Amino acid sequence: MNTFGRNLRITSFGESHGRALGAVIDGCPAGIPLDETDIQPLLDRRRPGTSPLTSARKEADRTEILSGVFEGKTTGMPIAMIFRNTDMKSKDYEALKEVFRPGHADFTYQEKYGIRDHRGGGRSSGRETVGRVAAGAIAMKILARAGITVSGKIHSVHGKTSPKAIKNEILVAQNNGDSVGGIAEIVAKGCPAGLGDPVFGKLDALIAGAMMGIGAVKGVEIGDGFAVAQKYGSENNDAMTKKGFASNHAGGILGGISSGQEIVVRIAVKPTPSIERTQQTRDIHGNVVEISVKGRHDPCIVPRIIPVAEAMLALVLADCWLEQEKYRR
Amino acid sequence: MNTFGRNLRITSFGESHGRALGAVIDGCPAGIPLDETDIQPLLDRRRPGTSPLTSARKEADRTEILSGVFEGKTTGMPIAMIFRNTDMKSKDYEALKEVFRPGHADFTYQEKYGIRDHRGGGRSSGRETVGRVAAGAIAMKILARAGITVSGKIHSVHGKTSPKAIKNEILVAQNNGDSVGGIAEIVAKGCPAGLGDPVFGKLDALIAGAMMGIGAVKGVEIGDGFAVAQKYGSENNDAMTKKGFASNHAGGILGGISSGQEIVVRIAVKPTPSIERTQQTRDIHGNVVEISVKGRHDPCIVPRIIPVAEAMLALVLADCWLEQEKYRR
Amino acid sequence: MNTFGRNLRITSFGESHGRALGAVIDGCPAGIPLDETDIQPLLDRRRPGTSPLTSARKEADRTEILSGVFEGKTTGMPIAMIFRNTDMKSKDYEALKEVFRPGHADFTYQEKYGIRDHRGGGRSSGRETVGRVAAGAIAMKILARAGITVSGKIHSVHGKTSPKAIKNEILVAQNNGDSVGGIAEIVAKGCPAGLGDPVFGKLDALIAGAMMGIGAVKGVEIGDGFAVAQKYGSENNDAMTKKGFASNHAGGILGGISSGQEIVVRIAVKPTPSIERTQQTRDIHGNVVEISVKGRHDPCIVPRIIPVAEAMLALVLADCWLEQEKYRR
Amino acid sequence: MNTFGRNLRITSFGESHGRALGAVIDGCPAGIPLDETDIQPLLDRRRPGTSPLTSARKEADRTEILSGVFEGKTTGMPIAMIFRNTDMKSKDYEALKEVFRPGHADFTYQEKYGIRDHRGGGRSSGRETVGRVAAGAIAMKILARAGITVSGKIHSVHGKTSPKAIKNEILVAQNNGDSVGGIAEIVAKGCPAGLGDPVFGKLDALIAGAMMGIGAVKGVEIGDGFAVAQKYGSENNDAMTKKGFASNHAGGILGGISSGQEIVVRIAVKPTPSIERTQQTRDIHGNVVEISVKGRHDPCIVPRIIPVAEAMLALVLADCWLEQEKYRR
Repeated sequence: MNTFGRNLRITSFGESHGRALGAVIDGCPAGIPLDETDIQPLLDRRRPGTSPLTSARKEADRTEILSGVFEGKTTGMPIAMIFRNTDMKSKDYEALKEVFRPGHADFTYQEKYGIRDHRGGGRSSGRETVGRVAAGAIAMKILARAGITVSGKIHSVHGKTSPKAIKNEILVAQNNGDSVGGIAEIVAKGCPAGLGDPVFGKLDALIAGAMMGIGAVKGVEIGDGFAVAQKYGSENNDAMTKKGFASNHAGGILGGISSGQEIVVRIAVKPTPSIERTQQTRDIHGNVVEISVKGRHDPCIVPRIIPVAEAMLALVLADCWLEQEKYRR
Repeated sequence: MNTFGRNLRITSFGESHGRALGAVIDGCPAGIPLDETDIQPLLDRRRPGTSPLTSARKEADRTEILSGVFEGKTTGMPIAMIFRNTDMKSKDYEALKEVFRPGHADFTYQEKYGIRDHRGGGRSSGRETVGRVAAGAIAMKILARAGITVSGKIHSVHGKTSPKAIKNEILVAQNNGDSVGGIAEIVAKGCPAGLGDPVFGKLDALIAGAMMGIGAVKGVEIGDGFAVAQKYGSENNDAMTKKGFASNHAGGILGGISSGQEIVVRIAVKPTPSIERTQQTRDIHGNVVEISVKGRHDPCIVPRIIPVAEAMLALVLADCWLEQEKYRR
Repeated sequence: MNTFGRNLRITSFGESHGRALGAVIDGCPAGIPLDETDIQPLLDRRRPGTSPLTSARKEADRTEILSGVFEGKTTGMPIAMIFRNTDMKSKDYEALKEVFRPGHADFTYQEKYGIRDHRGGGRSSGRETVGRVAAGAIAMKILARAGITVSGKIHSVHGKTSPKAIKNEILVAQNNGDSVGGIAEIVAKGCPAGLGDPVFGKLDALIAGAMMGIGAVKGVEIGDGFAVAQKYGSENNDAMTKKGFASNHAGGILGGISSGQEIVVRIAVKPTPSIERTQQTRDIHGNVVEISVKGRHDPCIVPRIIPVAEAMLALVLADCWLEQEKYRR
Repeated sequence: MNTFGRNLRITSFGESHGRALGAVIDGCPAGIPLDETDIQPLLDRRRPGTSPLTSARKEADRTEILSGVFEGKTTGMPIAMIFRNTDMKSKDYEALKEVFRPGHADFTYQEKYGIRDHRGGGRSSGRETVGRVAAGAIAMKILARAGITVSGKIHSVHGKTSPKAIKNEILVAQNNGDSVGGIAEIVAKGCPAGLGDPVFGKLDALIAGAMMGIGAVKGVEIGDGFAVAQKYGSENNDAMTKKGFASNHAGGILGGISSGQEIVVRIAVKPTPSIERTQQTRDIHGNVVEISVKGRHDPCIVPRIIPVAEAMLALVLADCWLEQEKYRR
């Protein structure tokens, strides 16, 4: 299932070391000014090779818009975008061809399909997200019409929250040939009340599905999230005053529908599974082998996941915003 | 959006104090022995009025199967089930007709639809889940064919994990006219490797959406979940040995596809928003008012959410299991 | 697949001789006045037993609305409706239990599912349409908001078009223990330009799928339909004048999008396959047997298909009308 | 809505004179040998410029597969294919920029979206079908595993059925600066019984939707189609003998499910709306103008629609074949 959304639909395709990756965005309203420069900034933030702390793979990630835009405006037709792979060092992966890297999808893809593109994880690679991010950039342009903005930040890495401590944690992991996990927080501002749709189209359900669908994400919470498990109702309910809600424990969503407050989402990001430290695993023949994953890998994927999570939140919100009017017609 | 699933589809309907609630299950394989007694046990576990610690509303929740079963077996046709409401004390809610109960969907439904069935929360009531649970019971019968079982338990309430401490926490909350939150854990055993579907149909993405779509759930995690944020890759990766995986930090899912290990899901459940303690809120005219929610409410909803969460997990797994064969044809 | 529609979704369930049939309508806008009396008139038109020319089965077809309506208005929640079966003479079908009736779905259901509810055709019975018609009545109430109306009529029976000749053709068939086919024409007036959605959501594609999904329909055409195969472009193109289109060969749809003209649809309806005249067929054991289908059957199903076709057209149009605004936001 | 199918999903994109057209095929089983040469033959049959009787536009229609294939085999991942536009004479269309061509989607696109890519009809151009045909070629490879083949032929043009008369009719139309309509027949052989899914997923309903979604198609019929309207039940029912069905009036589908016989579909194709003969129409300012559509247009589109119709039938059948096993699990 490589299509996501009901009103604004993204279809994603491509593998880490194939010819190209891309996305088709269907359901975009007509008349929105759009060209490649609208998409590049968000893409640049997810791009590897931009800091000593991220993977050294260098991809320009130049968007080519193939359809759906005419004389600088969207036409309501599907917008296809592709990204050519250029810096493909497939040979780096030759040694891993028959080995299941721990923490990766190698084993499960092999079990499910009986065949897999082992080069860089194929479709299970984080590189797949380039299409989602580009689609998210378009979703953000739609949301701008509604006055909605989406932004994310690092919440913590290895339990540390200050920028300096975070940087240090990442360097320590990197120096040890290891990686480290963390939490990202994504916030949407300016959402009107009414987005989301009971029962199975709840805004928080859609967001949770979208976030957990990002590789490396192992947990999602809205508003106070897991902290509610240690609270009383009298602490957790958001009272209302003349001016609106007095607090936002709910994270902007009540009964699956946006309340008009900020929407607050946090995601737990696992340590990058590709590490140089020796690990024990199996190959496709059932032999136990040792593995040290060389190559160009992020010691902490939290920073690069943020634009992906922003993109997914934007896609969900734009989808709901396009849906919203129906019930009042 | 009241339909969920791609291969096994459930459509849910009904309000807390309407004539009846129910569900239609579409896509169920033919030839499965099924009658009302297969459904009742799971329903009985979510039923209110069974303990001093749960709501006193008494509903028999008798399932009536209207279609899709012939001479005791499923026929492949849609299975409709209804549940008549009988113990409806709508007058309890008359006082709340124009007031937005804190922590409830009252405000957001009003904003979205401009109209709402205020009796007992209408469709946003936990009572809506009766249809899902019944559908889940059918999903479990399908899963039994594959050797898969689903079960849940209370993980903690207000941070406490021992049964005695949990009971005490709930009583304390109840005595204070308050409520308390907690965590539930749901596990699936016997899953073959290969369930789930990249990119947007990842098993964990489907589970997260399904769980967060249950009212009162504010967080979802798979395997080690939020704990991964404080770990190194060398700790978090599951090594493989001759016998299979040496650990299960991943919670049975790698790259969105089941690995053959146990699938482990935890959900954060907020304290029931309906509490007797006085709270400040607004009415539909914009006046600030005080509110004390009388009536029959659970001081802790964790126990009754467990069969709902089991049902949703069963629905997701049965859906994926029905999907699974396609890629190997 | 028992669910139809993207924005306005109907889920149909039930068998000819089961406990009840019904439908759930999801996505209906809130605030539309609705009760059972809005639904009955269209249902009454499809009901059997109303004329010597139609089946003698007597079903009151009383709608019971179970959900989605509060104080006489729709709430935006799913509207479930059920119809209890009362006049079930299942014994009439005992003799046919193991025999595949020619022209019916008996053989294909058996092949597909390995099991079938043989009583009255089970789910393949025309009786299944009761839920669709009820849903169509709701769709018509939505369309009324847009000024759109839908109506159908008999175009011809056995090639005859005058009411007297049509009646005669049906009586002749009936007297011969036979049945006869015909054509119905359904028209929608008041459609704004812009309904429908390229490429796979074309209005005519949706209509064709909806119509061909009605049992006994073997052909669908829009506007001039099959007659275009014998025309020149200069004859078939609809010229435009100051006042709009000078003709309507296109049947109100250009490039899959409504043009603002009348939408004109015709469907070819096969002769009812249940006839008293002796036919040769097989039973489930592979034996060749002779069959004479007794019981209560319409000699010509065209009149009773018309409200079903109206309902399906209304469902498609309401779905597209709810979709329409998105592209201009 | 630019995505079609439930199990095998095609997403189509691109405009007549944009950078590229293409399609993404999602849900293809893994392990099928595939490269560009599998796709080219079907594409070549729909290609313009191959005969004096078809449009003179010369497009190589070279497929580039971007993803989903690894070492010559499908991987179960989405297969993206693109087709660069090269022979774009956009200036030919400059004169038509503000004019609504009769019989085209110009008017309805303008009404719906408020903007349109006028160059060659943009997305409403027949050129859009290049992606569908490529997808259909892949569907045919899937069907080959099941022993199913699909083929089409011209049934008639302007009422004539012999090849010589057909050629003559087309030449006459062309010489008059006109165009002419016809009928194509598409047949699937080797279908097992059991494809298709009641009620809204009926095989004939899916086929009808797929066919009517092809531009220029104004009617669809299955088996005897509109001829059933002039028949008695005793003539139309297909009797069964020891060896199977004695006839195939039903066109291989009973109750929406394949019977194991040949599936027979006919489509009515309107005369190409682009003709040199002078027609009256309007421009976007509301002025009545005369128009003569120059450029490179087929006088009869029936031959070039056949591969498109074959592709759509193959897509529907492959989708149903992938679905089929679920009900017997």
